[in-house]
Amino acid sequence: MLLYETNKWDIKTHVLDPSETSPCKYLCNYFQKGDLTDYDTVYQFGKGVETLTVEIEHVNIEALFQLEREGVEVYPQARILAIVQNKITQKQFYQAHNIPTVTFMNFNSKKDFEGKQAFPYIWKSALFGYDGKGVAVVKDSTAEARLPDVACVIENVVPIKKELAVIVARNLMGEIVTYPVVEMSFSNEASLVEFVISPARISEDTVKRATKIAVQVSKEMQHVGLLAVELFLTKNEEILVNEVAPRPHNSGHFSIEGSLTNQFEQHIRSVLKLPLGSTDIKTPAVMINLLGAKGFEGDAYYKNIEKILAVKGVTPHIYGKKQTHPFRKMGHITVVSPNLETAIETAKNVKKTIKVIASNKY
Amino acid sequence: MLLYETNKWDIKTHVLDPSETSPCKYLCNYFQKGDLTDYDTVYQFGKGVETLTVEIEHVNIEALFQLEREGVEVYPQARILAIVQNKITQKQFYQAHNIPTVTFMNFNSKKDFEGKQAFPYIWKSALFGYDGKGVAVVKDSTAEARLPDVACVIENVVPIKKELAVIVARNLMGEIVTYPVVEMSFSNEASLVEFVISPARISEDTVKRATKIAVQVSKEMQHVGLLAVELFLTKNEEILVNEVAPRPHNSGHFSIEGSLTNQFEQHIRSVLKLPLGSTDIKTPAVMINLLGAKGFEGDAYYKNIEKILAVKGVTPHIYGKKQTHPFRKMGHITVVSPNLETAIETAKNVKKTIKVIASNKY
Repeated sequence: MLLYETNKWDIKTHVLDPSETSPCKYLCNYFQKGDLTDYDTVYQFGKGVETLTVEIEHVNIEALFQLEREGVEVYPQARILAIVQNKITQKQFYQAHNIPTVTFMNFNSKKDFEGKQAFPYIWKSALFGYDGKGVAVVKDSTAEARLPDVACVIENVVPIKKELAVIVARNLMGEIVTYPVVEMSFSNEASLVEFVISPARISEDTVKRATKIAVQVSKEMQHVGLLAVELFLTKNEEILVNEVAPRPHNSGHFSIEGSLTNQFEQHIRSVLKLPLGSTDIKTPAVMINLLGAKGFEGDAYYKNIEKILAVKGVTPHIYGKKQTHPFRKMGHITVVSPNLETAIETAKNVKKTIKVIASNKY
Repeated sequence: MLLYETNKWDIKTHVLDPSETSPCKYLCNYFQKGDLTDYDTVYQFGKGVETLTVEIEHVNIEALFQLEREGVEVYPQARILAIVQNKITQKQFYQAHNIPTVTFMNFNSKKDFEGKQAFPYIWKSALFGYDGKGVAVVKDSTAEARLPDVACVIENVVPIKKELAVIVARNLMGEIVTYPVVEMSFSNEASLVEFVISPARISEDTVKRATKIAVQVSKEMQHVGLLAVELFLTKNEEILVNEVAPRPHNSGHFSIEGSLTNQFEQHIRSVLKLPLGSTDIKTPAVMINLLGAKGFEGDAYYKNIEKILAVKGVTPHIYGKKQTHPFRKMGHITVVSPNLETAIETAKNVKKTIKVIASNKY
């Protein structure tokens, strides 16, 4: 989706991706298959560009630090990725900067906490967690026994009213803009976002407080590019930072149809030292993640897509991943309407109608 | 812009284009450089695809007829291109189907009309006219003497109040949708559209009549895909068809930012037998054509683009053509605002600010 924007502005792009069948391959000027965690691969690739941005946190940061030293513009900065990549350093960052977050402890190995924590608690692997992977609600010793022995963060269970997100954009000149606060609703089954609702159905005061905290994180981090700030609104009306992602984010996909400047264009603006664009709402919107259906593996087939295309205000985005498997993110669908409640109703129906299955099963 | 939509839906594309530096090259799955007017080139290319669409009228139609006979889905149909490609057959089509159009005569050579027409009159080459090329207002015998000796249409000069356009989409099932009537304002200097204003500032009655005529043309033609119907609103409040284009059209670019379904997605929907999308307005919009500045030839440089990027609601689209020359269409800019008059004011300022010059001149 970033590459639509670079093409829109005739910006030349090189892409490094681990998959030979990456959908990026046909949207960039030069494509290289390679391991994002390998120092030499990232370093050599980065030497060939003027500005480098990343869309995944798990990339070789040492190579990015070296590229920065050699004058390549790397945004988000390697320093930001180093903070965010590891849940322990991320949580410590919040603590050090008085950013409200869920109370936590961190451990380097399992023996340090096993048998010593009151249940239930939230366990998060320090590394490689995303989309609900590397996260567990630990309710008893059986669940605790199943946890892998890795560095981790352990958090209190906080009663949550809503999960919110704010996308902040910041450019090198320190200009900051924020998108409207959105509301994320999760599927219990896959710990993945099911709907993102823009704008969030919360009070004006909550909007202000959430936006203020998101801007605070942005200012303290001094990142360049987007920063998606995921927040908890607790049952006590407290707002706590859950985690951040320094890149275009699922919680901002609604902006393609719903905002004056979509998040991908905004990211390009911020990393290329261009003025930031207006984040005003063009229309209320609901984003639905299109996940691979349970029980299907193989070449993806989008069952009933022609039915949802007949519904007013519905725009599917199909990512072009060849293979589906249960809960794989295969695309997203945006539903817009001048009336948010109508968009939500339509989104629920769309969600029930479309199904990503394997083509040998239809 | 069509290729953004095919990518959005993971539709595989092959592109045939006469230029090796075509911006399409990095947006499709297979690119072939070739002459669109050569039978063998078009035929062989067409044999490799399931559905073929064209974005320019001047293509080898015999090859398209042959491909249709061999089962390739060609939309717009070769028959439609044959009517539209030649201004004489196009005008005769309107006449035969009682579609209101400017009174005309047609001639096969210059000697048939030279010295016999009252001045002023409008001369249009039967073939190869577009963007004001192949069209002349002939005011006296000196101007007449300069006309080339080719088949042509001669039209009365009609006092025009506004130029309007309606984009109609029609799929194979015969479903038809229309976009809002837009208003085109022309630059006198280049006979090129300067602004497209959506929606047009005309009465409800004029909207109805213009839409009705556009739908009539669509129904009579039985095209598949988009049909851009350009209309004259005369000083007598008559509506006359000027010409049509059976493809995504400059007068529909506003729809990328301004409509629930943009014209490119709509074209893809119609040629792939998908349900048509809603054409509802998302926001009022003004489209500005970004033309090469007078007096500049060479590698294109977009002077002041960073200034217009700082203006709320402004989205430039840069087509990625390497070379600029006077009045070459280098891109377009959409300006949106909930208030149409604000969008028009902003568009005028944007137009004054940005300039496409040659990079060796800045």
